Amino acid sequence: MSFGIAIGPREDKSPFFDATVAAGAASFTIYNHTYMPVSYGDPEGEYWRLINAVSLWDVAAERQVEIAGPDAGAMVRYLLPRDLSGCKSGQGKYVPMCDHAGRLINDPVLLKHAEDKYWLSIADADVQLWARAIAAERGFDVEIRDPGAAPLAVQGPKARPLIRDLFGDWVLDLKYFWFEATSIQGIDVIVARSGWSKQGGFELYLLDPERGRELWDVVFDAGQSYGIGPGAPNYIERVESGLLSIGADTDDDTNPFEVGLGRFLDLEREDDFVGKQALIQLKEDRRRRLVGLFIDGPPLSPNQHPWRVYKDGKRVGSVRAAAFSPRLQKNIAMTTLDFALTDEGTAVEVDTEFGARTGHATTLPFITPPVTPPKSET
Amino acid sequence: MSFGIAIGPREDKSPFFDATVAAGAASFTIYNHTYMPVSYGDPEGEYWRLINAVSLWDVAAERQVEIAGPDAGAMVRYLLPRDLSGCKSGQGKYVPMCDHAGRLINDPVLLKHAEDKYWLSIADADVQLWARAIAAERGFDVEIRDPGAAPLAVQGPKARPLIRDLFGDWVLDLKYFWFEATSIQGIDVIVARSGWSKQGGFELYLLDPERGRELWDVVFDAGQSYGIGPGAPNYIERVESGLLSIGADTDDDTNPFEVGLGRFLDLEREDDFVGKQALIQLKEDRRRRLVGLFIDGPPLSPNQHPWRVYKDGKRVGSVRAAAFSPRLQKNIAMTTLDFALTDEGTAVEVDTEFGARTGHATTLPFITPPVTPPKSET
Repeated sequence: MSFGIAIGPREDKSPFFDATVAAGAASFTIYNHTYMPVSYGDPEGEYWRLINAVSLWDVAAERQVEIAGPDAGAMVRYLLPRDLSGCKSGQGKYVPMCDHAGRLINDPVLLKHAEDKYWLSIADADVQLWARAIAAERGFDVEIRDPGAAPLAVQGPKARPLIRDLFGDWVLDLKYFWFEATSIQGIDVIVARSGWSKQGGFELYLLDPERGRELWDVVFDAGQSYGIGPGAPNYIERVESGLLSIGADTDDDTNPFEVGLGRFLDLEREDDFVGKQALIQLKEDRRRRLVGLFIDGPPLSPNQHPWRVYKDGKRVGSVRAAAFSPRLQKNIAMTTLDFALTDEGTAVEVDTEFGARTGHATTLPFITPPVTPPKSET
Repeated sequence: MSFGIAIGPREDKSPFFDATVAAGAASFTIYNHTYMPVSYGDPEGEYWRLINAVSLWDVAAERQVEIAGPDAGAMVRYLLPRDLSGCKSGQGKYVPMCDHAGRLINDPVLLKHAEDKYWLSIADADVQLWARAIAAERGFDVEIRDPGAAPLAVQGPKARPLIRDLFGDWVLDLKYFWFEATSIQGIDVIVARSGWSKQGGFELYLLDPERGRELWDVVFDAGQSYGIGPGAPNYIERVESGLLSIGADTDDDTNPFEVGLGRFLDLEREDDFVGKQALIQLKEDRRRRLVGLFIDGPPLSPNQHPWRVYKDGKRVGSVRAAAFSPRLQKNIAMTTLDFALTDEGTAVEVDTEFGARTGHATTLPFITPPVTPPKSET
């Protein structure tokens, strides 16, 4: 199946939109009310470029929710189940976000700019509405807005030398998820060591939306010698690496324990936060789990629909992301299965778009991320 | 510009998805995390079918937010600035929804099923998150969920005789926005006299998502003698009729008075509701208004980007929806202009994708809806 996407002013265009079109963007999705390129028409090339070289992604659709003001710290501590007491200005944290019933509603990266200013760099949901409702109802003295910053991701093993060329040696000292405000050729950006792959890399948050084309070109030109090319959050690599995708791997009733995020929650915290009592209860929940699945048979194309999973004729789960892994030379999938079936090797039947197949449960990730080389080797 | 849309399990497919694909759906958007067809490749035919005959639309992306439980009535009264005291079970109401600062966040249709059960049939935003946050923080005893009902719109002047053929004479007695639960060929539906056009029509809320293809076929087959065809919310007709589109005509800081929704608010209400104090202040706001604009020159294609509007070289607004009206034989647009420039006939310059043009302000709608004929004439 292949269809066009309607392009109009109801959805926002990224500051990099024109650059991605010029670079050959072939298909898009809509994410946080923003067009996001997902393919440049060369899935294999885009995959290997991320694995072996460096790939440039317009991820401006990862919108920011800024929470600023005297109560900003109290507000983010109330919103988020993770312990943020050690979080420093300039530091980012991956922060599952739950509702009052403990349902997972987003998994942003929190960027702490200052004691009174935070950004949530969000997955696809209207977290701004959520945060504004809670702030107003609880009387937090904060202002909540989209600051308009637009991330451009530079991902892959060659991202390090490229970013060093662009910004200088200091940038290699950034610890994972830390960030720093700087500029390049007069374009103000925030450089963060982050990105939605396990191949290493950085995100450049563009602060002036008028300069998207310039920033794209600066990075693209400097990346020529490292084999840079346009890309997008990579479907295959994310399954190999077991990266969670909100909305794909979760439904309206997913709790963080089911998808392996329990380790990011601090339920022992003494202060109250959204969902605390519910999460304490859900911790013991043994309903289902997100696991990996090896699927037999010839190479599968990525699934366009969820695939139903059966055990002895009974429905036991759904495959929401499947791909053929070029590195493993196997069909792999992320799937939510009844808890009793999640032991390594458990066989299930998968009703794929390409016929019935047998799957075997395994742990995630399928491929462990490469170790980041010490600075001297990059 | 024309691009593909990524089809995958991260977004939901409508229960009518397969039927729309079989009917020739050519392009889609994503609305409330759901694929929605927007074109079948024949824009002119789709327009005239809506104006002269009857058009079938998959609008399952207009998702429902169900608020049910002992405090459901108190909750919707607190959420919504409209006076609902006269609203009966079986009645719908168009209800602008604002945040605590009076910003317009959605414009759903409220369907009152019973004193303790309401649906909000929503435009594109995560109203469920908004409502859950407020319910939990205020302690309303309600359950908020998506009931999974999927609207199929039957729009155009021939919708009345078609719906009468399908359901019987009683359906013509439904008043505007009223609804009734019934079934057709064993498929449970709610029939509502509503729809996002001014050509008259109905929406059938499918209650069993497994039966989308069947319902589509039943209506399509019965509509053959009335010239039915597939369609979608029509860009041209909505501009002609001045129908508001959240996200297209509004931004993050739009208040309901700016877009002509002041008449749906009841600020004299004695009980408290979200945004009450802010809306009382904003009532006097004279910053900008959504108006019509006639644009000179040869026929314009619909705008893919917002167009900047200038007066004497100064930026005074944005055109967010423009089209050539086949019925008026003129270029028309909906535009947000500085308040001082909204008098009939005021000239402005529009920086279109097709060059600079002159526009003249006018009142909305461009075309007044046809009068619904009395029952005996249909």
